[in-house]
Parts: sequence; C-alpha cells; structure tokens
Amino acid sequence: MEYIQSFFQDMGAVMQLPAFFVLLECIGTLAGAVSGIRLSAAKQFDLFGAYIVGLATACGGGTIRDILLGLTPFWMVEPIYLGCVFFGLIWVMMFRRMLVRQNNTWFLFDCIGMALFNAIGIEKSLNLGFPWWVAIAMGCVTGAGGGVMRDVLMNEVPLIFRKEIYAMACIAGGIVYILCNEAGWNAAGCALVSCTVVIATRMLAVHYGWSMPKMKAEDN
Amino acid sequence: MEYIQSFFQDMGAVMQLPAFFVLLECIGTLAGAVSGIRLSAAKQFDLFGAYIVGLATACGGGTIRDILLGLTPFWMVEPIYLGCVFFGLIWVMMFRRMLVRQNNTWFLFDCIGMALFNAIGIEKSLNLGFPWWVAIAMGCVTGAGGGVMRDVLMNEVPLIFRKEIYAMACIAGGIVYILCNEAGWNAAGCALVSCTVVIATRMLAVHYGWSMPKMKAEDN
Amino acid sequence: MEYIQSFFQDMGAVMQLPAFFVLLECIGTLAGAVSGIRLSAAKQFDLFGAYIVGLATACGGGTIRDILLGLTPFWMVEPIYLGCVFFGLIWVMMFRRMLVRQNNTWFLFDCIGMALFNAIGIEKSLNLGFPWWVAIAMGCVTGAGGGVMRDVLMNEVPLIFRKEIYAMACIAGGIVYILCNEAGWNAAGCALVSCTVVIATRMLAVHYGWSMPKMKAEDN
Repeated sequence: MEYIQSFFQDMGAVMQLPAFFVLLECIGTLAGAVSGIRLSAAKQFDLFGAYIVGLATACGGGTIRDILLGLTPFWMVEPIYLGCVFFGLIWVMMFRRMLVRQNNTWFLFDCIGMALFNAIGIEKSLNLGFPWWVAIAMGCVTGAGGGVMRDVLMNEVPLIFRKEIYAMACIAGGIVYILCNEAGWNAAGCALVSCTVVIATRMLAVHYGWSMPKMKAEDN
Repeated sequence: MEYIQSFFQDMGAVMQLPAFFVLLECIGTLAGAVSGIRLSAAKQFDLFGAYIVGLATACGGGTIRDILLGLTPFWMVEPIYLGCVFFGLIWVMMFRRMLVRQNNTWFLFDCIGMALFNAIGIEKSLNLGFPWWVAIAMGCVTGAGGGVMRDVLMNEVPLIFRKEIYAMACIAGGIVYILCNEAGWNAAGCALVSCTVVIATRMLAVHYGWSMPKMKAEDN
Repeated sequence: MEYIQSFFQDMGAVMQLPAFFVLLECIGTLAGAVSGIRLSAAKQFDLFGAYIVGLATACGGGTIRDILLGLTPFWMVEPIYLGCVFFGLIWVMMFRRMLVRQNNTWFLFDCIGMALFNAIGIEKSLNLGFPWWVAIAMGCVTGAGGGVMRDVLMNEVPLIFRKEIYAMACIAGGIVYILCNEAGWNAAGCALVSCTVVIATRMLAVHYGWSMPKMKAEDN
C-alpha cells in the first residue's frame, strides 16, 4: 500500500503535474467539444449552434459545478477552454469524413477528460471545505453534467439516463479519491489513482457491455 | 382574527416545530422523488437516471431558489435530502406494483411537500431581506420548479404549463403568508396558515377539476 | 472619428440616457415577453405557462448572465420587468388577432431589446473587471440566452442554433463596443454605436436572408 502511494506520488512529481495537467485538460475539453459538435452536425445545426453545443458539452459540467460551489465559472477566468472548443469546431469541419476512423482515439480522449474533470471537481470541493459526499457529487457533475446539458440543448432525452455508465465510473473514481485522501495521500496521488479507476471502469464497461439495470415500468 | 393567530402560534409550539418540520420536509422530498422516479421508470431509465430525475424533482426547485438567492444549495449542506431520494428509489423498486394503489397517499404527501417548500422559500427570502414579491416568486420556484426541471430532463413539455394549478396554489399560499407576516405573526404561524391554503387549494382544484384558462392560438 | 465619437456622446447627453434607457429596456422586455407568449399560445399553454415562458424569454438571458457573474438577478431587485411581462400577457390576450399585422413593429422592438441587452451585458461585465472576451460572451448571453431558455422550456430545438443570426449580430456589436471602449469612449457612446451595429446587422440579415453556414453531417 505504501509502495503504491509512493509510486503514484513519484509519478506526480516526475510528470511535472501542473503542465501535464493543463495538457490533459485541453485534450479532455477538445474531446468533449468534438462529441457535442459531431452530434450538432448530424442535426444540421449552424456553426454558431455547433460551437455552443460543443462548449456546453465540454464546459457545461464544470460550469454547473462552479455555480453550485459559488465560484466564477472556470472558463470566464482563463480563455484557453473557449479556444479548445474553437479548435474542436475547426477539426470537425476539416476532418469530417475521417472522424469515424478516429473514434477509438476520441473515446480514449473522452475517458481521460472525464476522469480528470471528475478529479478536479472533487479536489475543488474538498479545498473549499465541503464534505466528502458533496465532493463525489461535484466530481460526477463535472464529469457527466456536460453530456446532460448537450442533450437538453439538442432536445434529446439525456443519453446518460438510459445507457453507458459514465456516471458510475465517476462515482467509483470519486470513492477511491476520497479513500486515498483520507489515507493522507497528496492531491496528485489521489488524482492519479482516481483517474486510473475511472478510465479502467469505463473502458471495461464499454468492452463488456456493462450497463446499469433499467427501472421496470408499473405495467398498469 | 387574534384567536386564529394564537391558535396557529400555539399549534406551532405544541408541535415542536423544528423536529416536526424536518419530518414533513423528508416526506415532501420523498414524495417529489417518487413522482420523478415513477416517470423515469415508465421511460425505462436506468437506476442512475431514475435517481437523478428523482433528485431533480425533489430538490431542483430549492436548488434554483438557492442559486437565485446567492446561497449554497441546501442539499450540499445537509445529506438527508440525498438519502430521502435514495429511499424513494428503493421504495419504487420494491413496491412497484402497489404504487398505483398508494396514489392518494402520494398525492397527499406531494401536496404537503409543495406547501412546505413554498413556505420555506418565502421565509428564506424574507430573512435575506428580499421584498415580498421576490419572496412569493421564490416560494413558487421552490414548490413548482422541481417539476419543471424533471420535465426538461425527461424531454417533455412541462406539465405545469398545460395542466393542474400547483403554481397558482403556491402563489395563493404566498400571498396569505405575506399578509400574515405583515400582520406581525411569527414564522410558524404564517407557515401553518400558508400551508393550509396551498393544500386546500390544490386538493379542491384536483377534486373539482379546476384549471387555469388556456391561451388561444392566433389562428392565422 | 473624433466627430463620430462626440456625435454619439452628445446624443447620449441629449437623450438624457438613464430615463431613455429605462424606456428602451421596457420595450425590449415587452418584445421578448410577447415573442415567448405568442409561441406558448400556439402550443395552448395556460395563462401561468405563458407568463413563465414570456418571463424566461425576456429575462432568462439576463438571469443566466447575473448568475455567471455572481450577481443577484436583475428582476429580483427591480419589479418593473415582471410588470412588463404581465403587460405583454395582457396585450397578447387583448390583441390576439391583430398581432400578425403588428409583426414588423414587434420585430423592431425585439431588435432594439436585443441590442440594448447586449450592451448592458457587456457594460456590467466590464464594470466588474472581467476581460473583454468575457464581456462579449456575457453580452451574447444577455441578448440571446432568453430565446434558448424559451425553446428548452417549450421542448423545441433552440431556433438560434439552426436559423437567424441574432447571436452573430450580438458578437459583432460586442466587438464594436470593446473597440470603442478601448478608444476611450464613455459608456453611452459605446452603447449607442454597438446598438446601431446590432440592429443594422440583424435587419440586413433578415432582409437579405443571411444565415450562418450549416454543419455538414458525416454521412457514414
């Protein structure tokens, strides 16, 4: 156990976390934006609509989190996120016919983004002094809220309520984060373990077709 | 008039309001959650989707109110509400085939919850120094906002814009609350009278089929 | 250039801006409300639903802006906006069959409102010390966010993502505002030029049928 701890903490130091984090955050934002923009394109939205849906998908979860926590939304403090969404728009327009072949890459990027956003949401909440169950909820909102906002704006029933298990992956990663944190690990170590859990859970879930049990109707 | 005032104020004292309030709040939260979860089940959402829709129905109105008032959302301060929604999920799963027979009970609980949430929204706003018309609006948001959020998340036209008169019951109860408050009654007395008005209005409305007049189209 | 500056600044002084602004704000609020209420009537919402949709259309954008900026929503500070929406409801009910003939007037009022709301959103953001790109975004949210909220509440795909170019008009006006502001003009001068650009862009767009290019689907 102590070995694992020191391994992940060393990893954090080796990777020069701040710079590496920013790179991963941009990749995650880009992946979220591309997912929203592709769906908008399928519905023949115009450029502006696609940009807004991409922004909502990539940054909507973090925005809801910041509003719930009483903070200024992160993209109003640092313009790089709006730039990532813009870059995603250009990418989708330029590589339209090649996106399907890039599906695995985008899925990986999306997993990385979700895992990272989850960890950021948890860390922000704990730093503000909120209890652990709020932190897990805020991680989940950060990681999965953007997809809900995208679906509401596109007038669809949110995908996450019917399929896939992003949210459960976020919650699993959140519980692991809290446990590591309780055990006295530093933020970088907690985040690395938590992200590993989220990415592994989601990949296994997609590979084996895991899904949450569906509710049964009342057949009246 | 003075007799009524002292009656309701004594009632408040007799009922040991704080503890009794918490019980009623839990019942109201449970009723809201069950209403959202049953609708999710009818749309075959998975467990996670049902939980979120239940949470949005039960706590969505109060969350919007707290954000508008500039407060930390109430369920991020006290975990009992998340627990009530979880209990509602278990209940719907266990008693699926019996829920129809419990319809009258759930309707009563839902009325109690709405009336109480309305009074809480008003009291919170007045305590923060907002004027009476903001208080009435916040009561209405607390009592009826959850249903709108539920319908938006489920991709339906909000029921409250087309049927039933929850919102008017909230506004009627809000006006009565403000009048009692102006007359110098204490919060418990105002809340009891206001809740009575909301519950009575909504029950009479359902019993006699009252509804708001519909807008007429422009037939062009 | 200096001539233009002094012209617009003198205009501001001549028009006694504060009072004139309030009048224009009311006209803009009324126009937004009427647009939402007419669409609600077409869907046979009841009076309450129509009022809420009118309110969301007229005041929803400014509400999102105030929440993002961390302010108390403007309509909770000053009741005149709720009154304007109420007046809009009465108007639509009384002049139902004549509204089609008033279409050009309402379009003009709507343009004025959007232009003004855009300028107000920019000015508020700059006054709070936010950078120029946040100000442009907040102007756009103020001017165009209400229409998105209306469409989400009515369970439609937001019109602005598929048609018309309100948002681009807001952004054009926002860029002009920022340039004038950088050039040292006062707020009234910046707002007048910015509003002129927004109104002109939107009118030309409708007249010549300009629209944003649509995204192309991936035809897989």
